Amino acid sequence: MSVKLLHNTPLWIADKAIGKCWDKPTPDVEVKEPWNEYTAFARLAPGCNVERMERVANKNKHASTIEHLNYTFDITMSRACLQEWSRHRMTSLSVKSSRYTLKELKDEEPFADYVCDEDGDYEYEVVEGGSERAKKYLVFTDDDLVNEASVFNLEELRKLISLGIANDKAKYCLPECYKTSMVWTVNARSLQNFLALRTSKAALWEIRDIAYAVYYALPKSHRFLFADSVN
Amino acid sequence: MSVKLLHNTPLWIADKAIGKCWDKPTPDVEVKEPWNEYTAFARLAPGCNVERMERVANKNKHASTIEHLNYTFDITMSRACLQEWSRHRMTSLSVKSSRYTLKELKDEEPFADYVCDEDGDYEYEVVEGGSERAKKYLVFTDDDLVNEASVFNLEELRKLISLGIANDKAKYCLPECYKTSMVWTVNARSLQNFLALRTSKAALWEIRDIAYAVYYALPKSHRFLFADSVN
Amino acid sequence: MSVKLLHNTPLWIADKAIGKCWDKPTPDVEVKEPWNEYTAFARLAPGCNVERMERVANKNKHASTIEHLNYTFDITMSRACLQEWSRHRMTSLSVKSSRYTLKELKDEEPFADYVCDEDGDYEYEVVEGGSERAKKYLVFTDDDLVNEASVFNLEELRKLISLGIANDKAKYCLPECYKTSMVWTVNARSLQNFLALRTSKAALWEIRDIAYAVYYALPKSHRFLFADSVN
Amino acid sequence: MSVKLLHNTPLWIADKAIGKCWDKPTPDVEVKEPWNEYTAFARLAPGCNVERMERVANKNKHASTIEHLNYTFDITMSRACLQEWSRHRMTSLSVKSSRYTLKELKDEEPFADYVCDEDGDYEYEVVEGGSERAKKYLVFTDDDLVNEASVFNLEELRKLISLGIANDKAKYCLPECYKTSMVWTVNARSLQNFLALRTSKAALWEIRDIAYAVYYALPKSHRFLFADSVN
Repeated sequence: MSVKLLHNTPLWIADKAIGKCWDKPTPDVEVKEPWNEYTAFARLAPGCNVERMERVANKNKHASTIEHLNYTFDITMSRACLQEWSRHRMTSLSVKSSRYTLKELKDEEPFADYVCDEDGDYEYEVVEGGSERAKKYLVFTDDDLVNEASVFNLEELRKLISLGIANDKAKYCLPECYKTSMVWTVNARSLQNFLALRTSKAALWEIRDIAYAVYYALPKSHRFLFADSVN
Repeated sequence: MSVKLLHNTPLWIADKAIGKCWDKPTPDVEVKEPWNEYTAFARLAPGCNVERMERVANKNKHASTIEHLNYTFDITMSRACLQEWSRHRMTSLSVKSSRYTLKELKDEEPFADYVCDEDGDYEYEVVEGGSERAKKYLVFTDDDLVNEASVFNLEELRKLISLGIANDKAKYCLPECYKTSMVWTVNARSLQNFLALRTSKAALWEIRDIAYAVYYALPKSHRFLFADSVN
Repeated sequence: MSVKLLHNTPLWIADKAIGKCWDKPTPDVEVKEPWNEYTAFARLAPGCNVERMERVANKNKHASTIEHLNYTFDITMSRACLQEWSRHRMTSLSVKSSRYTLKELKDEEPFADYVCDEDGDYEYEVVEGGSERAKKYLVFTDDDLVNEASVFNLEELRKLISLGIANDKAKYCLPECYKTSMVWTVNARSLQNFLALRTSKAALWEIRDIAYAVYYALPKSHRFLFADSVN
Repeated sequence: MSVKLLHNTPLWIADKAIGKCWDKPTPDVEVKEPWNEYTAFARLAPGCNVERMERVANKNKHASTIEHLNYTFDITMSRACLQEWSRHRMTSLSVKSSRYTLKELKDEEPFADYVCDEDGDYEYEVVEGGSERAKKYLVFTDDDLVNEASVFNLEELRKLISLGIANDKAKYCLPECYKTSMVWTVNARSLQNFLALRTSKAALWEIRDIAYAVYYALPKSHRFLFADSVN
């Protein structure tokens, strides 16, 4: 899992949008006590009245005013996680395509093999170092049995690719923990919704982890807008 | 793969929307030669001027007038296919959740086992009848090696589920050919875009097959709207 | 102001979408006390478990499951109201175009004229019957001074049209109370948002009136979904 | 009419998104002849392969890759123009609200008055300097009769406001040439669609003028993406 913020709109753009509705410029900052740990950072952003932004966009839910703020991230995750991620339709995503990139497995050594265990039973086993090498391609859970099964599945996939079977067919046995990455752009309104749903305890563990990482990848001066969305 | 049309808006709603822009009621039908095989069916739809619909919505690309037509389908597909399907953001989809339904594998018999082949080598092999039983859960390709690998992966998943490992972890080794199903609602404008992209020869074979099935599940009287979108 | 429901998706489509996520058919209805006045109507809808719909879509906010329900209305309103209406972007609207229909004023008699009042002052005055005829084109407020001013403005527009000035120019002096009408399609999720914002006391009086009319134009069996959105 | 670009995403973000799909970094620039006048500027943008962007996003219509580029403008236009502008739903707009700002007319002197012309007829006439002062509030067409009528309508509105009639009622006689302004954010894909439709000869003259101004407000290095959209 990795999250990197590539670009974001400066905060004053939202301030300008808010002022536009009432044809009012940015009022002087009335410094009050910070209402969350990030408010102080926001007050340092040029051309912004943080109190007005909080009141209009968050308290009064005039949420369209923060649609002008866009954030672009480079994120690595499993394809299991991507299944959930892509349900957020008010965002733009450009994803590494398995149809065009599975050949990356072609020159890999085997990740697992059949071996005879102490009782004389044969079974699949991860080869020495196979697990480490597999981590380049797979997102591991905290359950060793699942990870082992995933490596076996990766090995099945590797064999198909090394036999020259077309990506469009071989991909059908791809385990969902297979890593992908994407460039993702989301505006602040849609990101509030994303964070509220995906930092919830009911969320899938991986998307929850990444949702928090997304939050902490935001500029500190922007985080006050999202503090109430994060669980 | 299965596609079933559950509901659709009647065609005259789009006719009414088109007439609204110019404040004109439905003109009498000027019967001309059919311009495609479905035009004749559309002419039988009550309250519609097919020539005007074709001219405004398709030729003149005033496509918002056909957004009023919505189609709801019940569709079964692989999760590999769902990855592509969910990129169509101007649609609504309610999908069978792997997080909540993987327990369906709990009482299945093994799909594969380790066996000794003629040369004394041990390897995974699909058990008798395993392939047939697996088809309830997997979308098969036309490549036997891929399908076999998918059954092995399914067996790994089945073992994890039968051991009581939580769905949220076990799902990480799920092969992408695993079946899912969904209720999908799309308007005519967005469906034109979907059909144009997904009946293309460049599309993934499964989504292409389903895209055609979606087209043929439409009422015959609506198909003239999509005839030019289908490749 | 007029609101007419032209078409709606049947309620069971949303029930089917909800069941799909957990791969569960519609459970038997557990009849409890009605929680609002419309619950009883919804229980009569075939193929629906109203309690489950209320719990999933409204209480648990799994709102995407009701995006499958679409409603199409024919609505008349002022262009002032349309300015606000068109900000609801998750809807489809086909609107009577002033660019193509202003010629409707061409054959109208004058709505107002210059007259001499008791004090010998000349000023614009609505002609006898002018107000009634103007109502075909204008939405009146409850303030006579505003309505009178609007009729004067309509008269200015009428003169321009009768002089043959192009709609694209004449429309620039159109008063915003000028009537328009549209075919509007909205799904249940977006309609909840619309009703919550537009039945608020803070909303513009006309859009508030129409928002209530939209609510009461819904089939009684669907209204339980929106009862909490209406102020 | 005024158009000012407030902020834009740097071009390399789209290059990164394009490369992501095939897991390929930005290739070296293969310098060919410029295919339009702006290509040379784009080649100077850091981290971009202009030929690949043009091929993927425009020729191959993989348009989602340029959704990562967002542009925010500050634009002044008439409310007539806003009626059309707001139909572009894949954008974000924060608009000066007539409900909250009409009081700006309160302290204005009259723009028009009843006068006796040479023939002894009384009629409304624009007062000296009234037209110039009205331009602060109105967008003028190239037709004097329309502009005059608009000033009369503005005067009716001014009187209502100066009488203390509430904005929510007085606004009903507002002429559509009344100026508004907004902060508008649009991504490159949606902007291509906007420019194609609104620089067309069939477009309303004002939106056409502004659409061109939007195009020329873009950074020169971005314009090659839109050159084919502009009529």
